[in-house]
Amino acid sequence: MRDKQYMIDCGEGTQIRMRQMNVKTNRLGHIFISHLHGDHVFGLIGLISSFGMLKRTADLHIHAPQGLEDILTPQLRFFCEDLSFEVIFHAFKPNAIAIIHEDRSVQVSTIPLKHRVPASGFLFEEKPTERHIVREMIDFYKIPTWRIPKIKQGEDFITDEGVVIPNSRLTNEPAKPIRYAYCSDTAYSEKIIPLIQDVDCLYHEATFMNSELLRAKQTMHSTASQAATIAAKAQVGKLIIGHFSARYFNKNGLWNEAKNVFEHTELGEDMTVYNIP
Amino acid sequence: MRDKQYMIDCGEGTQIRMRQMNVKTNRLGHIFISHLHGDHVFGLIGLISSFGMLKRTADLHIHAPQGLEDILTPQLRFFCEDLSFEVIFHAFKPNAIAIIHEDRSVQVSTIPLKHRVPASGFLFEEKPTERHIVREMIDFYKIPTWRIPKIKQGEDFITDEGVVIPNSRLTNEPAKPIRYAYCSDTAYSEKIIPLIQDVDCLYHEATFMNSELLRAKQTMHSTASQAATIAAKAQVGKLIIGHFSARYFNKNGLWNEAKNVFEHTELGEDMTVYNIP
Repeated sequence: MRDKQYMIDCGEGTQIRMRQMNVKTNRLGHIFISHLHGDHVFGLIGLISSFGMLKRTADLHIHAPQGLEDILTPQLRFFCEDLSFEVIFHAFKPNAIAIIHEDRSVQVSTIPLKHRVPASGFLFEEKPTERHIVREMIDFYKIPTWRIPKIKQGEDFITDEGVVIPNSRLTNEPAKPIRYAYCSDTAYSEKIIPLIQDVDCLYHEATFMNSELLRAKQTMHSTASQAATIAAKAQVGKLIIGHFSARYFNKNGLWNEAKNVFEHTELGEDMTVYNIP
Repeated sequence: MRDKQYMIDCGEGTQIRMRQMNVKTNRLGHIFISHLHGDHVFGLIGLISSFGMLKRTADLHIHAPQGLEDILTPQLRFFCEDLSFEVIFHAFKPNAIAIIHEDRSVQVSTIPLKHRVPASGFLFEEKPTERHIVREMIDFYKIPTWRIPKIKQGEDFITDEGVVIPNSRLTNEPAKPIRYAYCSDTAYSEKIIPLIQDVDCLYHEATFMNSELLRAKQTMHSTASQAATIAAKAQVGKLIIGHFSARYFNKNGLWNEAKNVFEHTELGEDMTVYNIP
């Protein structure tokens, strides 16, 4: 987002895939961990260790539920001595709705999920950018430079004669801020709908097909059609489903099931880049 | 070996590669860790965790230098509660030559190596099998069944008339026991030569080419030509080189350098099966 990288969850082999895809990590400053199950965590130690070998210097912030620091710190001490950068842990409460990170471009909030251990999704919201100046109008009204910052923020301009020039004549709408929500792992939970309403893109887990509804409930996962139901009710722009059970060698069944409920569904696949329109 | 599986070292992503290659693990009972650097260890927690999900019941033995148990146990407790099988750690001294595992088919010994942390290679030696009975000769001399076990072990047969029938007429040579040596990570060390003399196959690390000889010395790794020199001096049947630095995108330089010193060199590549003749 805005030339910065954010990582969500870090399963085993993450760094290997990133190398295969030639993903540079110099703009990766923050990693967000949804819950403390191995398939969302086991790649961290290798990633950090490799950052050390590459002599990274920038701080690395890891946002995770309480407990990760205690389990990772002894490993860092043992395997990554003299690390060339700081690993800074930020514990958040997975059952609370809160802003857990904010920078100039982006705000990240938690989305409490329903899983076997405390788990949280993440809502990434781009901050609105300033309005775009229409240069010709600024020249036409001879607006002094010192007024420009306020006009970018939406203020009207009042001429020396007291005439109000509405801001809409002086500026254009900036690009609409993007909102992306990541929800995994979770059972079907309508409680998340108000939090992800109208996002441009929703990633929602779809571990099973509806034929395994009982197993989905028992393991606190979702089916493809449940993920799509959430997407439809929250009126999201696009749904990406993923976290499929290994039993589905061919993913088309999952995909079709979701598309029957919510048309704008894409299949989340390894090593694929998804653009948010 | 003899229908059993042994794993040596377990870097990040090992279980992923095994799934890709459809390697079954029901005959894997012993894992041997050469030294406690991340690239030889980070795959263990994920592998064990997945064995748990698959409801493995057989004990899993991990042979490693002192320290691994302390670092892995808290992770097992945190991520793998109610594991359906036992993980049993066996600490060995990397600087001593010793038999660290023995079963009906195989004997495994340590090969002290020269690295930045205590490190050990492993010598896998098949145990000799019994000689093969030549059925027609047994019938011809009317040898009673109760004598067969001793004859399989090499005893001659003496007829009632006192005639000695030499064992070589009654049995054939069994298949020659295979000997395999794994040496990684290590600087060039001629001390290992007597330990690996005449093995059928040697895996020796070759992190660098000779043009990086200084860097190899500093980091206590070997060059391709050094690996091949060890192979030649130990008169091994076949050399496999591996553990290449990421700088070598094309591995042919390493391969050629080794082949110039020792002809029977193969390039160790991911997801490749090497048979020992």
